Amino acid sequence: MWLTQGLHRAVQQTPGTVMTICGKRTRTAAEVADRVARLAGALRDLGVQDGDRVAMLALNSDRYHEYLLAVPWAGGVLNLVNIRWSAAEIAYSLEDSGTTVLLVDDTFAAMVPTLRAAYPKLTTVIHTGEGPAPEGALSYEDLIADASPAADARRGGDDLVGVFYTGGTTGFPKGVKLSHTNLIASTLGTAASGYACGPGTRLLHVAPMFHLADLAMWTMVTTLGGTHVFLPAFTPAGTAAAIAEHRITSTLLVPTMIQLLIDQPGLADYDLTSLTSVVYGASGIPQPVLERAMAALPDTSFTQAYGMTELSPVATLLSPDDHQTPELLRSAGRAAPHAEVRIVDVDDTELPRGEVGEIAVRGAHVMLGYWEKPEETAAAIRDGWMHTGDAGYMDAAGYVFVVDRIKDMIITGGENVYSAEVENALARHPAVASCTVIGVPDPDWGERVHAVVVLTPDAQVTADELRAYCKEFIAGYKSPRSVEFVDALPVSGAGKILKRELRRTRRAQ
Amino acid sequence: MWLTQGLHRAVQQTPGTVMTICGKRTRTAAEVADRVARLAGALRDLGVQDGDRVAMLALNSDRYHEYLLAVPWAGGVLNLVNIRWSAAEIAYSLEDSGTTVLLVDDTFAAMVPTLRAAYPKLTTVIHTGEGPAPEGALSYEDLIADASPAADARRGGDDLVGVFYTGGTTGFPKGVKLSHTNLIASTLGTAASGYACGPGTRLLHVAPMFHLADLAMWTMVTTLGGTHVFLPAFTPAGTAAAIAEHRITSTLLVPTMIQLLIDQPGLADYDLTSLTSVVYGASGIPQPVLERAMAALPDTSFTQAYGMTELSPVATLLSPDDHQTPELLRSAGRAAPHAEVRIVDVDDTELPRGEVGEIAVRGAHVMLGYWEKPEETAAAIRDGWMHTGDAGYMDAAGYVFVVDRIKDMIITGGENVYSAEVENALARHPAVASCTVIGVPDPDWGERVHAVVVLTPDAQVTADELRAYCKEFIAGYKSPRSVEFVDALPVSGAGKILKRELRRTRRAQ
Repeated sequence: MWLTQGLHRAVQQTPGTVMTICGKRTRTAAEVADRVARLAGALRDLGVQDGDRVAMLALNSDRYHEYLLAVPWAGGVLNLVNIRWSAAEIAYSLEDSGTTVLLVDDTFAAMVPTLRAAYPKLTTVIHTGEGPAPEGALSYEDLIADASPAADARRGGDDLVGVFYTGGTTGFPKGVKLSHTNLIASTLGTAASGYACGPGTRLLHVAPMFHLADLAMWTMVTTLGGTHVFLPAFTPAGTAAAIAEHRITSTLLVPTMIQLLIDQPGLADYDLTSLTSVVYGASGIPQPVLERAMAALPDTSFTQAYGMTELSPVATLLSPDDHQTPELLRSAGRAAPHAEVRIVDVDDTELPRGEVGEIAVRGAHVMLGYWEKPEETAAAIRDGWMHTGDAGYMDAAGYVFVVDRIKDMIITGGENVYSAEVENALARHPAVASCTVIGVPDPDWGERVHAVVVLTPDAQVTADELRAYCKEFIAGYKSPRSVEFVDALPVSGAGKILKRELRRTRRAQ
Repeated sequence: MWLTQGLHRAVQQTPGTVMTICGKRTRTAAEVADRVARLAGALRDLGVQDGDRVAMLALNSDRYHEYLLAVPWAGGVLNLVNIRWSAAEIAYSLEDSGTTVLLVDDTFAAMVPTLRAAYPKLTTVIHTGEGPAPEGALSYEDLIADASPAADARRGGDDLVGVFYTGGTTGFPKGVKLSHTNLIASTLGTAASGYACGPGTRLLHVAPMFHLADLAMWTMVTTLGGTHVFLPAFTPAGTAAAIAEHRITSTLLVPTMIQLLIDQPGLADYDLTSLTSVVYGASGIPQPVLERAMAALPDTSFTQAYGMTELSPVATLLSPDDHQTPELLRSAGRAAPHAEVRIVDVDDTELPRGEVGEIAVRGAHVMLGYWEKPEETAAAIRDGWMHTGDAGYMDAAGYVFVVDRIKDMIITGGENVYSAEVENALARHPAVASCTVIGVPDPDWGERVHAVVVLTPDAQVTADELRAYCKEFIAGYKSPRSVEFVDALPVSGAGKILKRELRRTRRAQ
């Protein structure tokens, strides 16, 4: 299969059905296909050859959708730029991948001169914004209007479809090479598990589309049928209004977004009954948040997808049924049909159920490798198994419990402490809105368990009270030795708490 | 992916869940896996090497299920024998494929001496029946009890998983070579379209398991999870009783079986409310039969799957929603997500919508080829497109209407007549229970449109009346010039009307 196959199928079966809705703009499948073929023709005219990388730096829109289809249609390779990155990081990823064509919207157009200065080989900039194209940039709409439609290059199977730079929360950015088969294996395995979609699906894109979490949903609906609705970015009120206005059936949120959505005042004024499915990922969800979400959205089922960019991205699924069992809410779910999942020790020996080791995953969805990093690829993929770098254990029923990033593990007084265990204990306290736990240097213990906490509005609690509270649930050596109260935790564009940043700044103190 | 992957997943996630029910025998996933590993060990001990063919000639049972898993587990290749074939035909298929190991049940054990005489290289016969093994045959249960479990050979992807001899309704038997990827592409694409299953699925096997229609359902539930219930063969009362007793949720029937099921006296005495999904295939369903079925089974949705062995087997699907539109009941549905479907002329040029040509299908589910028949493979698969040999057209919404086997087309007085058009007209008459239409030699017209009709009980109608009735719906030259009344139509094991046999005998008259 190949990424544009679903567009061909939509043209054959539902040419007049609305495929994209973006603000006041709606386009049918036939219209999208015509624009995609023309944009692909324009890219070929601009010199894009089979396998060339074409980047996009933009908020969500229908043009992002067209880009995702037109680049493979032209034979090119996607490079979805992380919108939270600095110009230096973006220039690095463009240079590393040898990307010479960049699509950019109004929000990020001002960054282009800096990018060009840092990376002079960036020859072609295409402006996808609403206003006139800035100097030195081509107009997206003019290109589409002027170009002849290209025939679909029909690259597929094991051909490279995209280089996806990992979020930068760990180590130096790496380009994850994914094939058409990679993305579609994850899509079909996930959909076949019970999250099937079709012409009636109405998917809202509010999480950033550059991230594999939202891209997985995009791939599913593009492959199986349905309508895409785009918001430039997440806002609680915008999301609620879009669900109500467009009778949205499905969306992908990260837990932080779920919390903001359900906590906004006036939520009950919106008709959200069309929303039958929320998929969440990128991190686990605290039990109290999920319980409030299930109460606020009684018509909605919740599914957790666990994975990573290198897994295209889904490895395990926590089903709607699983969400009825409170003790499973800490789990990331069980192996999806397309994935083999096991827990291994440092020698790659499978561990007994219940023992913590590294989560390893095998299947047709494991990335082709890291862009021009054969050694890092060989270190990550051994005997076909992608080593996730996540520590976890598996219970007797195959549920995977992610304990922590292996490198986030805190060693204090010779004892291993997994941050998630401490965070789960802290999160139970009614005064704690959100929290994260890291290791910081300590003269006595080597590392000290350090908690960074956001309190709920008007709540008051001391560090000693929280420490004592945690000891009700976890061993004394695991409870935080220091607690810091902040107004907000730093999060990545994908909603992940930036532990590395916290760790760096706290260690420097 | 590979065929036994779902068994490994079941052992990891639901080891204690019942996987098979056969008469009074129930086995959990862990028990099945243990038996499969031992049977695979026994097959290896008997000399089965990677890629060797192992056949089964048996009615449906849990042992058929174990065979389907143990042969690929051992590295071997499946050869599912058509139970309706003569000994000569079976010996041909064993010899053609070089199969030296045969599993046989009590029903077919008596055929073994004849098979051995016709094909002396049949060295190993394994008896899967309930009684003692006949002389010269090994006991299936003794083999499992005595063998050490083998490790899964984990052949998968493009490796050959089975040689499936086509039904013999057209031409000489050919072995269709299917890979693991072939079967699983069809499975995941079909499941992702909305027929998702999982641990709660309870699938009843009543159609013969050697046929790809039932095997496709088997592959889906084995890959995605669920419980298999086996009846040796279809009977209307047995099927109704099994649905009620085992709270069956899904089954695969051919239209003939649907008709027999709903027409049996006392159907209302069974609680069939658990049956949420019936998939039917192998032939279209007359509208009156479907309407009666929908009335008799109000809790059941109906899905038609169209395809063929060479397509592993699904190409198009007529969804439950589609069944609400009467004019779509004549359609075979639309391309499944994994399949490209088009209508081509003899030069392989795609035809405009509405024009009749050959139905061609492309995708990862297209067979590897015919066993040792490179010329027939090259004739059938051109530029990746499997040419089905079925004539059909596609409407503006992508629905495929199968008009006839291309070679079944009748040419009468220089006009092309597609049998299905005539059959559809005849089937509307209230006195017609079932019918088929063939061309027979005629001194005036070259071929004559000839109808073979089964009347409903106590109905009386003349040939002239039927001919006049048809002319209400179709052109005069398409209406049958001769009509023959019979008690029953000859059907294959898969429920297809044996037109070739009718044509041969009628032409000889």
